[in-house]
Amino acid sequence: MIKESLINEFQKIVGKDNVLTSPEALKAYSYDGTSNWVREPDVVVFPTSTKEISDIMKIANAEKIPVTPRGGGTNVSGGSVPWLGGIVLCTTKMNKILKVDKENLTATVEPGVVLQDLTLRLAKDGLFFPPDPQSFLGATLGGIIAENAGGPACVKYGVTKQYILGIEVVLPTGEIVNLGGRTLKNVVGYDLLHIFISSEGTLGVITKAELKLNPIPPARKTTMVVFGDVAKAGESVFRVLENGVIPDKIELLDNWVINRIEEMMPMGLPKDADAVLLFECDGIAEAVEKETEKIVEITKKYGAVDARVAKDADEANKYWLARRAGFAAVFGKAKTVFAEDVTVPRGKIPALINRCKELAKKFNLEIVVLGHAGDGNLHPAILTDISNKEHYDRAVQAMDGIIEAAVEFGGVLSGEHGIGLEKQKFFRKVTDPVVVDMMKNVKALFDPNNIMNPGKIWD
Amino acid sequence: MIKESLINEFQKIVGKDNVLTSPEALKAYSYDGTSNWVREPDVVVFPTSTKEISDIMKIANAEKIPVTPRGGGTNVSGGSVPWLGGIVLCTTKMNKILKVDKENLTATVEPGVVLQDLTLRLAKDGLFFPPDPQSFLGATLGGIIAENAGGPACVKYGVTKQYILGIEVVLPTGEIVNLGGRTLKNVVGYDLLHIFISSEGTLGVITKAELKLNPIPPARKTTMVVFGDVAKAGESVFRVLENGVIPDKIELLDNWVINRIEEMMPMGLPKDADAVLLFECDGIAEAVEKETEKIVEITKKYGAVDARVAKDADEANKYWLARRAGFAAVFGKAKTVFAEDVTVPRGKIPALINRCKELAKKFNLEIVVLGHAGDGNLHPAILTDISNKEHYDRAVQAMDGIIEAAVEFGGVLSGEHGIGLEKQKFFRKVTDPVVVDMMKNVKALFDPNNIMNPGKIWD
Repeated sequence: MIKESLINEFQKIVGKDNVLTSPEALKAYSYDGTSNWVREPDVVVFPTSTKEISDIMKIANAEKIPVTPRGGGTNVSGGSVPWLGGIVLCTTKMNKILKVDKENLTATVEPGVVLQDLTLRLAKDGLFFPPDPQSFLGATLGGIIAENAGGPACVKYGVTKQYILGIEVVLPTGEIVNLGGRTLKNVVGYDLLHIFISSEGTLGVITKAELKLNPIPPARKTTMVVFGDVAKAGESVFRVLENGVIPDKIELLDNWVINRIEEMMPMGLPKDADAVLLFECDGIAEAVEKETEKIVEITKKYGAVDARVAKDADEANKYWLARRAGFAAVFGKAKTVFAEDVTVPRGKIPALINRCKELAKKFNLEIVVLGHAGDGNLHPAILTDISNKEHYDRAVQAMDGIIEAAVEFGGVLSGEHGIGLEKQKFFRKVTDPVVVDMMKNVKALFDPNNIMNPGKIWD
Repeated sequence: MIKESLINEFQKIVGKDNVLTSPEALKAYSYDGTSNWVREPDVVVFPTSTKEISDIMKIANAEKIPVTPRGGGTNVSGGSVPWLGGIVLCTTKMNKILKVDKENLTATVEPGVVLQDLTLRLAKDGLFFPPDPQSFLGATLGGIIAENAGGPACVKYGVTKQYILGIEVVLPTGEIVNLGGRTLKNVVGYDLLHIFISSEGTLGVITKAELKLNPIPPARKTTMVVFGDVAKAGESVFRVLENGVIPDKIELLDNWVINRIEEMMPMGLPKDADAVLLFECDGIAEAVEKETEKIVEITKKYGAVDARVAKDADEANKYWLARRAGFAAVFGKAKTVFAEDVTVPRGKIPALINRCKELAKKFNLEIVVLGHAGDGNLHPAILTDISNKEHYDRAVQAMDGIIEAAVEFGGVLSGEHGIGLEKQKFFRKVTDPVVVDMMKNVKALFDPNNIMNPGKIWD
């Protein structure tokens, strides 16, 4: 419990209205997008400036109070759950887009800017920020950076870290530093910027960011390719890429997911297909046309039974709506869902899909596959029920099996969700203890009192 | 001086032929591509395996002997000069391309692989590694990673760090660790990989790397655009980009450089032009055609006096040969040349060029401008003579002025060359002391005995 006198201090710093301690408020800030991890903070604070965050951090550091930075709370590994109580430092009131620089193709933003708001603002200048996590309607930039978020468009554009030129950070001591800068090239000493990106809020609070932008491509085209065998869909992914076509998105939906989407909102998806791949190409119209032709040609060569090129934006939007509905369809069908985030070298996608099928059979479970096939980042989902111990135990064993398979195939246990609370067991299992120690030493160096989002990654 | 008994130990580890101590050998390994920094090592060792490097590091760490890792030695900031003597650990005999994985679009390489050799090998599979430092004929992958090398193609493709998925590193203790992995997405704990990339050999020895590759684009086209005013050339750079055209290269040569190239090897460059920009577009033929048309249209709109689209590969190669000859032309014309590496937000290129002109006038010096205009990374070069103290002092003042201008315009003092020995004075001047301390603490954490490339970055 935090002393009443400190709550008063926080009120002095951010104003009375920006400090919440009511039971309802503490409950509201006790969870993130991962339903199975819940823990209440002692207080929720809404700073409106870097200076305020710095003042709060100085108190927290002196008093050794845990601080969990949080934005939209859409995280799916428990990263923004205040596991050891203390302060939830919520940045949603720092939501200004400070600058859009067309000449330099950059934007300066506060951490509480919602991705969708940024996207709409940038579109006015014909620009976009490529990372596109599915949580774009609620996810805020601070969290997107702290988690190094991914999304479908990473096939072509890469992950968040490739679009962060610099950040302003408040360290646990309250010191304010700038890491990186505003330029595309920057080799001035150690790359501390990247240590903070994907550190899951355990090293400091990101209070401002300089983003690298791209011009919006003039054309885009969607193709839905239908497969009678999900492993053949997996193979088609790398066949397209090795033939020199780089779509911006390649997404996979298996038969189970297709049918649940059709039940939820009928849109003419092929219910008999073992899997579909959704491709989107973007760029200059002539190039998009050519690439789409090649996708149809290559996927048919490698076993596709049908390829439907969307005739217009409406048809394309329908397919992408289906893809986005994928997780909702899964979560609506089971009391508990393990949504995996394994990532493998692209050539290993068919092997991973086959392993999921074997595990489903072995443990007599429903394991469905969807995800970002284009970059090897699949989200196999296991349907179970936490209140049915016997069933749940089988699901846990299957989950272990999927992660072991990913590592066996040269992959990793998390591509874009992070470790947080959710993957700690596996993190310890698959990570070289020397490397874990190196990470822990970095943590101890920057946060000696262990106040920043304690309990995460390795605890 | 290293004890004779230790030299014997090294001989036992790597074989007698792989340990050099003759005066000629020590001289040969006393410098890099920066002519003004020279210091001899005590011994040069050529390991042929990770295990051998580990064994050498254990001895060096126990005996507190400096170790300077080195590959092709093409570095241009003094980074591979053994400033405190000790061991030069030369990786050039670890030059195997271990694997090219077409399915995953990756390659596994040893640190001593020369970039050009990699390029030729990958071309057989229709692939390429995008970073393209001008030193590609001699630069080795270990150094390219340790320096986070750039090059002309970064406009579109980004810098080296975006193409490194994982590395194997020998730590100062001799421990061998793997950082990163083989997948495009990877958020498993802190991003230690990026701390080692661009650490200039001060944290460990890179012994293996997993590279991300791209398919070779089917078409490319070069356009030389001529300007009567170098600042207008600078403006055209961001006008092209803000109009949604992303060429893979945009290079700038000013009047002085054009004329020196023409003297050296006449190739029909426009001798009266104040500057030329060389654009290259790559991709699908139709897209390249369209983008090239837009470049001609946009640059003419913003003040270009002529635009010559290369009619074939021969003409294109001639222009790129001219660009590559740029530095040779500069270095051939003065006893001492300061080749700057400042980088500014792209919109500030005209301002930086104008400042260079003002400084040239103020200090009565020849300052010429060439470089990677597309990403704001210019290499203004000051012609001087280290043996003429009065002239040299003026050159130093002008150099200070250029770096101050870059920082004033929101840029950095080094875009791709690194700090090494060359930029230490400026590094201290422009970097937040809190951030310098953070970097030094990371160094002390990973290399407590300060044996890895000591004397670099901040000493």
